[in-house]
Amino acid sequence: MMKKNYPKRSKAEHVIYGVHSVTEALQSGKEIEKVIIQNNVHGEWIPKIRKTLAEREIPLQMLPAEAMSRLVQGNHQGIAAFLSPIQYQAIEAIIPMVYETGVAPLILVLDRITDVRNLGAIARTAECCGVHALIVPARGSAQINSDAVKTSSGALMNIPVVRSMNLKHTLGFLKESGLKLIAATEKSDSPIWCFSLAEPLAIILGAEDTGVSPEYLKLCDELGMIPMQGQLASLNVSVAAGMFLYEVVRQRGG
Amino acid sequence: MMKKNYPKRSKAEHVIYGVHSVTEALQSGKEIEKVIIQNNVHGEWIPKIRKTLAEREIPLQMLPAEAMSRLVQGNHQGIAAFLSPIQYQAIEAIIPMVYETGVAPLILVLDRITDVRNLGAIARTAECCGVHALIVPARGSAQINSDAVKTSSGALMNIPVVRSMNLKHTLGFLKESGLKLIAATEKSDSPIWCFSLAEPLAIILGAEDTGVSPEYLKLCDELGMIPMQGQLASLNVSVAAGMFLYEVVRQRGG
Repeated sequence: MMKKNYPKRSKAEHVIYGVHSVTEALQSGKEIEKVIIQNNVHGEWIPKIRKTLAEREIPLQMLPAEAMSRLVQGNHQGIAAFLSPIQYQAIEAIIPMVYETGVAPLILVLDRITDVRNLGAIARTAECCGVHALIVPARGSAQINSDAVKTSSGALMNIPVVRSMNLKHTLGFLKESGLKLIAATEKSDSPIWCFSLAEPLAIILGAEDTGVSPEYLKLCDELGMIPMQGQLASLNVSVAAGMFLYEVVRQRGG
Repeated sequence: MMKKNYPKRSKAEHVIYGVHSVTEALQSGKEIEKVIIQNNVHGEWIPKIRKTLAEREIPLQMLPAEAMSRLVQGNHQGIAAFLSPIQYQAIEAIIPMVYETGVAPLILVLDRITDVRNLGAIARTAECCGVHALIVPARGSAQINSDAVKTSSGALMNIPVVRSMNLKHTLGFLKESGLKLIAATEKSDSPIWCFSLAEPLAIILGAEDTGVSPEYLKLCDELGMIPMQGQLASLNVSVAAGMFLYEVVRQRGG
């Protein structure tokens, strides 16, 4: 099961490996998607790098030697870093900026969307619907790589993306900032069109299989569902995102 | 440019090749997606097969020798047939059946959707939204193959699919049957929510790049657009389909 979450081998230009190169990339302030370190590798550099990662809120994944070698060709010395094609932004800066323009903020929170194509597709739709920021958790989310950017038709370069190390904390910040939290969930009996979506809003969409986590559902002001017929009764998450955002656009008058 | 439209090599079980095998498949009444014949191949069988294809309304594509060999391994003798994973249905049978159940028909017409994944994704959403049939033109549309079925999460096995040899004629039939034709198009100034979508309805969605063909736009009763913001201003067609179908579901009360 763990294998499933290993990142796929990336194009050479997006991977940096070796202690010296990774340390330099970290010092230069480059946007790093995640760092992987091989299990059972020792060295003085490990605690130093761990400290920097914690400070910079960069996810760290420990991997067995075979997985490291599958991902990184060359003498990686037990460490590699994936560069991010985008620059992450801070939600604390975005929300006040949106309020200043006199517009009701519209934020999309993606709780464990693990499919890169779905993430890209959602970003594309979100950009078209005037979403002010995407929030993704630092762990358990699809990696924002060149495939995600491509599927997004470049939208990921236009729309602010926020990486949250603690989604619960970030959702708390959104509520404190006056946003209504609404989750798309099959656990609701109320169609999304029953809710007023013109006010400051954060929509939470959940994992493709299990939906929004119960701990985040508890924090929500509203739970809305998209009525379905048919035998499948399972919409793709990027289509569900499109429907939800369409409803917001409709209520806000286009 | 022509290369772009060649079907990709399919899994062996979906391709039948050789004069004898293809003739037998045609005689047995198997559902055939399309037949390909090599340019400059001669034989008495050619006019016979051409006649059968015309009668059965099965698309025929003529290909150069190199393209044939790329698609079909083995001694194909200049002819191959792609079996369809689904059984096509007749719109003339579906519409009266829907009316008999007391429900307003909801039909989705896909004008030159060439991406197999988009076709599959649309089928999945359509099945979830209670669409009664998908109509695809016999030519210039994505092939309904195992990839399409997979992307549809199996919806293509549940939802009736109609293959139209003459889309103009089929649209005429829908109008005569009391359905309102509405196209999703950027050429409209009216958002889709301005229209009454609870009545018998056929929605036309167009090609990913150029949209609905002008000749079909002329036949429509209404043209509706999905308002967009952002810099991309281009929704994926399967997301646009989802938004349009959501609006129908909303107006019909879930």
